Amino acid sequence: MSPFADRLMDRVRAHGPLCVGIDPHPALLPALFGAGPEAAAKWGVALVERCAGRAAVVKPQAGLFERWGSRGLAALEQVCEAAHQAELMVILDAKRGDIGSTAEGYAEGYLGEASSCPCDAITVNPYMGIDTIEPFVSVAERQGKGVVVLARTSNPGSKDFQAKLVDGEPLYLHVARALQPLIARLRGEGGWSGLMLVAGATGPEDARRLREAAGDALFLVPGYGAQGAGAQDAVAGFVRRGAIREGGVVNASRSVASPAGSLEASSVAEWNGAIDRALATAQTELLEAVRG
Amino acid sequence: MSPFADRLMDRVRAHGPLCVGIDPHPALLPALFGAGPEAAAKWGVALVERCAGRAAVVKPQAGLFERWGSRGLAALEQVCEAAHQAELMVILDAKRGDIGSTAEGYAEGYLGEASSCPCDAITVNPYMGIDTIEPFVSVAERQGKGVVVLARTSNPGSKDFQAKLVDGEPLYLHVARALQPLIARLRGEGGWSGLMLVAGATGPEDARRLREAAGDALFLVPGYGAQGAGAQDAVAGFVRRGAIREGGVVNASRSVASPAGSLEASSVAEWNGAIDRALATAQTELLEAVRG
Repeated sequence: MSPFADRLMDRVRAHGPLCVGIDPHPALLPALFGAGPEAAAKWGVALVERCAGRAAVVKPQAGLFERWGSRGLAALEQVCEAAHQAELMVILDAKRGDIGSTAEGYAEGYLGEASSCPCDAITVNPYMGIDTIEPFVSVAERQGKGVVVLARTSNPGSKDFQAKLVDGEPLYLHVARALQPLIARLRGEGGWSGLMLVAGATGPEDARRLREAAGDALFLVPGYGAQGAGAQDAVAGFVRRGAIREGGVVNASRSVASPAGSLEASSVAEWNGAIDRALATAQTELLEAVRG
Repeated sequence: MSPFADRLMDRVRAHGPLCVGIDPHPALLPALFGAGPEAAAKWGVALVERCAGRAAVVKPQAGLFERWGSRGLAALEQVCEAAHQAELMVILDAKRGDIGSTAEGYAEGYLGEASSCPCDAITVNPYMGIDTIEPFVSVAERQGKGVVVLARTSNPGSKDFQAKLVDGEPLYLHVARALQPLIARLRGEGGWSGLMLVAGATGPEDARRLREAAGDALFLVPGYGAQGAGAQDAVAGFVRRGAIREGGVVNASRSVASPAGSLEASSVAEWNGAIDRALATAQTELLEAVRG
């Protein structure tokens, strides 16, 4: 398989940088799909079908499936499988991280060739150190997959530890710099690396500093839409390449997957319409932002 | 249900501070139990039965079950259920962490009353900030459960970010101090808090500093046994209470669950014997350490 970064950027150039979050919060599952993990699977698969040809990638949120234990994980497996059928890439938002052999378990489980829940990339937490990220990169390198490391997240608590100053610079910049050897290992033919960084849209200035520290790393940008950041802030860490700016994907969850009217939709056609309008709005906003 | 900390310390006073890690690494599953997730379930359940009345608590490693996707998680559910039948407490080593509603998904999935994978506590990663730990504490408070926050882990990479100096002190001490309000919320009748900290046995001096910063927090101490630390180092963060030292539990995984001879055992009786000897050795060593 060709490197993750090249595959992702092909989709971004075709459809724009929109990443759609698949977050089956029980309160946000339309009654139309039922309830529980079976509803999460049906809703997720339906969402994936709407996204095909419109978004670059989808990002299921592991924790919202795991609420239902093994039945929830089986639902997640169905959604990932549907995404592959629809030729959509999948970034699993699992925020894993552990020592050697356990990290290998997670990496094989979600990025390995025998995976029952096949994803193109997985989000990981750097707190435990570089040796806990390395096993993910090893599997990713072998399989043409990506690894997305939390650097500067979009939640208010991101200031608690990520922003602490170490030698005069916030911790998230130290994280980005320490990842350089791993960024180099996942660099694709096009120059971008599939060792991505999470750079929250709620901190555009921080995203610019992360771009200076890690020029080649693609960014996964959460916080756009329902979390309050606009499209211009979301692409703050992107760089100009010809007529457009590129450098990652921008996630929208609730604003696209649970827009006004979708929760109460009384038919699949009505729900499809609400999702299609929300998808078009987000796609257009982001395309304008990268062309601006 | 009475607070987690009180329940855990009752077991520790009865059996000593041993926590047994259940890490179904494919290469460490005895052929006797077969292979794949079904073998992980059988082996885990058998291990739980050996631990009953000898260890305070067991700690299944989520990543090593998730290697097999939803079938692996179903195996984990069987092991957790068996532990409850055997009146053993369960700390799920999942190292989760995410923003509000997702953290709530994980918390309900593993600590909630409707959980299909019922655990007494779960390990969480603090990198994203206090607002990402709070949802776990809310569910734990309501359900008499515990939350175990990574502070100073036992792997070599723990120096990469956890040990970075912020205002002259390592980051893990800032983490411990920022957790004070949550530590207070999970304090039991006996004074100890079910907001536990991971304090690796490979850093006994760091464990003492963590104890100064968080006097009431119980510690989960990894790194004893196969990872190289001795029993005295493992209890470095414990404090004297009468004739013994207490303040947490000490995890042993491979040295107890996969001792020499167990992998090649040709009968259940032979495997039982190898595990029982390893359990007795670890239990005795730790009891001597807390009495020393």
